[in-house]
Amino acid sequence: MTSEAKRPLILVANDDGIEAQGIALLAGVMVEIGDVYVVAPAEAQSAMSQALTTRKPIRVQEVGQDGPYRQFAVTGTPTDCVKVALAEILPRKPDLVVSGINHGSNVSISVLYSGTLGATLEGCIAGIPSIGYSQHGRDADMTPFLPYVKHIALQVLEHGLDDGVCLNVNCPSVPLQGLRICRQTRATYANAYETRLAHDGETDYHIKDTFQNLERESRDTDSWAVRHGYIAIVPVRIDMTDYRSTLKLNTWQWEL
Amino acid sequence: MTSEAKRPLILVANDDGIEAQGIALLAGVMVEIGDVYVVAPAEAQSAMSQALTTRKPIRVQEVGQDGPYRQFAVTGTPTDCVKVALAEILPRKPDLVVSGINHGSNVSISVLYSGTLGATLEGCIAGIPSIGYSQHGRDADMTPFLPYVKHIALQVLEHGLDDGVCLNVNCPSVPLQGLRICRQTRATYANAYETRLAHDGETDYHIKDTFQNLERESRDTDSWAVRHGYIAIVPVRIDMTDYRSTLKLNTWQWEL
Repeated sequence: MTSEAKRPLILVANDDGIEAQGIALLAGVMVEIGDVYVVAPAEAQSAMSQALTTRKPIRVQEVGQDGPYRQFAVTGTPTDCVKVALAEILPRKPDLVVSGINHGSNVSISVLYSGTLGATLEGCIAGIPSIGYSQHGRDADMTPFLPYVKHIALQVLEHGLDDGVCLNVNCPSVPLQGLRICRQTRATYANAYETRLAHDGETDYHIKDTFQNLERESRDTDSWAVRHGYIAIVPVRIDMTDYRSTLKLNTWQWEL
Repeated sequence: MTSEAKRPLILVANDDGIEAQGIALLAGVMVEIGDVYVVAPAEAQSAMSQALTTRKPIRVQEVGQDGPYRQFAVTGTPTDCVKVALAEILPRKPDLVVSGINHGSNVSISVLYSGTLGATLEGCIAGIPSIGYSQHGRDADMTPFLPYVKHIALQVLEHGLDDGVCLNVNCPSVPLQGLRICRQTRATYANAYETRLAHDGETDYHIKDTFQNLERESRDTDSWAVRHGYIAIVPVRIDMTDYRSTLKLNTWQWEL
């Protein structure tokens, strides 16, 4: 067996679309570690959560065939990209799925809305170690964090992750202080819409919700870490059962 | 204060769309308990997870103004429906958010993909007790379960739910044996696509994935319960942190 044959196979996805700078940087780092396939949305798919295209077909087009890795644009969601990559594009089950680097933070409850994490969770459901990378600040410089992006991937390849667990990694936009293992920040949204009269006389509702941190000073949260210059790593599990509540619910009156 | 003023305010959403039979049945049950607003997608939005419309506006149209409750059709996702209902439509914060009744099961990891649960999680994030209802079997008769749908809602109104926890309720399609508090079944998907040559000469990929139960005989899972004639209730939490992994990850080598 040649050393080449031992290189890990890495699937790279994202939600900002295949043209985003973040995915080019991520793929550029991953190609130093293994054999890379980029399979990403043809167009931006932010806030698509783990949505799946079921009512219409998707299409897959290979693009940019002269680079150091193969790239495929998919007319679907981030989750569609992972599913079609695993079923139709990759030569075998990959050793790692990475998603991002998202232009913008995905701390706290963003894990539920984020397409970056949708792709990550999909890799995890398929039984593959998976990491979602995001960076606070839409236009922040990602390059200082690339050595850590690589290091985190290497650590995951070395140690593996528990079954049903993936990583949500958020980089700060301020000078780096270090890296912290965190928990998901408790938060809510102040829901608001800006209404505008459209050309056809109907009212358009544009979302203008605001993130509300419910535990701003909790130092073990991902939001605190990123705000204070740390790379925040939250292990995310696909089992959403609240086990404490199962005990409580069993004491309720369920007879009609 | 009149007894009328004490009636709970209930928001009803779904992902099958405002025309679905399931939401009419759910609203019909809820109007026996409280004052109901139906705010649901204008068109079917299955498998939309907690996706949010951010790149274009949404529209809201009141429909069917002569019924026992007000109804609004939204050109967006289930999560959009809950957000716009809370921000723009309801007279106050509701006492309960219910979503469904979904035509088809949402047991196991479906919680991650389901629009029914997307709306439920959104209610939970807003700090409102929230319940997602689904029924196994797309064309199954929902009416035998309606007394339980009501009873579960009344229990939640009486006891409340822990902060950050909502309920995923799945009804069986076989004769009812009872009700069980369950945990989310471990599962994965066998990803597959059917490819067809489209009229323009390109290949269309139609998703044909298959649910794979990884613990078919575990009697405490929602999948087992529904398959054996039980209504399955899983408490679902929005904190996806895997706390056990945080300890393990802290022992890894994080220095560059």
